[in-house]
Amino acid sequence: MDERAARMALSCVVEPGTGQVSALVEDFGAGDTWTRLLAGSLSPAWARRARALALEGIVEAAARHRIRFIVPGDDEWPESLACLAGCEPVQQMGGVPFGLWVRGGRSLREVLVRSVAVVGSRASTPYGDSTASGLAADLGAAGFTVVSGGAFGIDAASHRGALAVGGLTVSVMAGGLDALYPPGNAALLSRVAAEGLLVSELPPGAHPTRMRFLARNRLIAALAQGTVLVEAALRSGARNTVTWANACGRPVMAVPGPVHSALSVTPHRLIREAEAVLVTSAAEIAELLGPLGQRSHPRADVRRPWDDLSAGELAVFEALPARLGMAAGEISLRSGVPLSECLGILECLAERGLAVEAGVGWRLDPAVRSRASADPGG
Amino acid sequence: MDERAARMALSCVVEPGTGQVSALVEDFGAGDTWTRLLAGSLSPAWARRARALALEGIVEAAARHRIRFIVPGDDEWPESLACLAGCEPVQQMGGVPFGLWVRGGRSLREVLVRSVAVVGSRASTPYGDSTASGLAADLGAAGFTVVSGGAFGIDAASHRGALAVGGLTVSVMAGGLDALYPPGNAALLSRVAAEGLLVSELPPGAHPTRMRFLARNRLIAALAQGTVLVEAALRSGARNTVTWANACGRPVMAVPGPVHSALSVTPHRLIREAEAVLVTSAAEIAELLGPLGQRSHPRADVRRPWDDLSAGELAVFEALPARLGMAAGEISLRSGVPLSECLGILECLAERGLAVEAGVGWRLDPAVRSRASADPGG
Repeated sequence: MDERAARMALSCVVEPGTGQVSALVEDFGAGDTWTRLLAGSLSPAWARRARALALEGIVEAAARHRIRFIVPGDDEWPESLACLAGCEPVQQMGGVPFGLWVRGGRSLREVLVRSVAVVGSRASTPYGDSTASGLAADLGAAGFTVVSGGAFGIDAASHRGALAVGGLTVSVMAGGLDALYPPGNAALLSRVAAEGLLVSELPPGAHPTRMRFLARNRLIAALAQGTVLVEAALRSGARNTVTWANACGRPVMAVPGPVHSALSVTPHRLIREAEAVLVTSAAEIAELLGPLGQRSHPRADVRRPWDDLSAGELAVFEALPARLGMAAGEISLRSGVPLSECLGILECLAERGLAVEAGVGWRLDPAVRSRASADPGG
Repeated sequence: MDERAARMALSCVVEPGTGQVSALVEDFGAGDTWTRLLAGSLSPAWARRARALALEGIVEAAARHRIRFIVPGDDEWPESLACLAGCEPVQQMGGVPFGLWVRGGRSLREVLVRSVAVVGSRASTPYGDSTASGLAADLGAAGFTVVSGGAFGIDAASHRGALAVGGLTVSVMAGGLDALYPPGNAALLSRVAAEGLLVSELPPGAHPTRMRFLARNRLIAALAQGTVLVEAALRSGARNTVTWANACGRPVMAVPGPVHSALSVTPHRLIREAEAVLVTSAAEIAELLGPLGQRSHPRADVRRPWDDLSAGELAVFEALPARLGMAAGEISLRSGVPLSECLGILECLAERGLAVEAGVGWRLDPAVRSRASADPGG
């Protein structure tokens, strides 16, 4: 099974946010991981689900709803998701998604170049709704794509605000994109699909669950340049998105409100404890996110240690697993560089501090790995 | 003229907030400063006002309205004002007041042991008024004295909130305490005088002016343990009180509000720029001000270099001027320590880093001076 098909199969079988499997894919490739999963070496339950998987039916359903599947390396793949590889887990979740199911006519990567997540409570107040839609409209007019979760309340108000000014908006869903959830927002989400994008880790036919909402929140936080919390009560799922944004190193902003409003308790607390910056306008949000594209493109003035590698060296370097050692023979196969040449290149990479010997094989030097994941240019 | 009478006379002639004259009083005493002023060596205009001063009439008016005059060293004098000696000037103003005119049956020092200023716009919104009076009521019930300026809007709401729960409240006025200003708040201010205190730098008969309001703001900020800003538009006098609280090293807090409210622009800006901490309740305010009396009493665990002085040494030390050198003979007179003994003590204080020779005489060591003004125990 090729890598793309294996990633698609994994997205159908493995629950989103299972960081251990994402790490395996990163280190050994999706095909290899899928083989292990089928063999039952990861989890008997997943193995059963894997054996029962009818990928053709899912591909057909996706085509019927004009849903495509994108994977890392595709033109449309957003670099911003790379931060999830190095993130601390949040509620035991994490990891770069195997791929993304996308519905809508635009390039996901392009619409996210300048983007901000606007999130908050489903049980919002009229103040929160009007503030969220007002901010989203101003952000949309200023060229920002508004990312949210498609839920009732603040999410819906944010999508509506962006659409109202002809702005771009992306809804990141916790289930398959064939069914628009919640049904009460179906008309709104159809408009988002028509003018912006719907995105999910989950294949057509998958239903949202509580755990899938939590996993979805990490995508909202990672995909956008920063996250704005408009209203959230003391216990709120939106708080989870803020935790993810902090874990990803993205700016977190919060909108104040009346002091007696239960829905402003969490924004006020985040501001008070310096976990979020108080914002009252799109201009203040834009100021915190910096000039156009600042965080989304590699900066030309940053030299990275792998910038000087030859094509063959780069192929070997990119084939190196991040965590567990891999035999030189496998690296040769993955990189397409003949084994004899590959061995010389590995020595050379080790001398330059880019690779280390690990057990029976080789892997990335840990210092490089942390540098690569910290680099805003990915 | 004795020191108390000289301070009273100065309060009648010199505009409040004239830091240079406060410094002269600190260094040479009020009697000496008054003599210079009468002689015209400070300002011809002040000399004319000084010569025309009929102190008896003012004393009579004060007695008629049960207004007393307190000076540094009195039991009732609040130590917290000492911070104004070392403060950076704000809008060219500063200085410890020569004395305070006080109306009401309580000890000013005692009511301020646990106190917080609640200030804001005169043109407040219903949201601001209800928030200010709610906070003031909760602060009053928690044993805090609410300090404010007696103006319309947030000030009045704060005084009312404190009075409503039988709490203590102090109104710091910009004119004489014989006339309750503004007249529209006369009934409220009478209640403040009956149950709390009215305070002013200005003698009976003095009218409030723009400059006197600015000078008054420094007293509000210095007298209270911390300052809470409830509502203030972009340009607001309440912003000036916050600047003073920062200059005095007092905690500054601000209450958020709806993002579209023009009256929340300044609180939001202060929070956003980390000049103020967001607060939404009396409990959060109390938390920032620390446990009962923490900032108002000298901490027993802090040793200061003058703690070990003998009575004679302390008398000489306390007679030292802060800025300009003073002849040993004058120090002997001020301290009541005979000249021969005084000279020995001055040498001894110099050895201990507490005094330095300056020109024709002696003064405090500058390092001691900054330590004394920075010490929260005063």
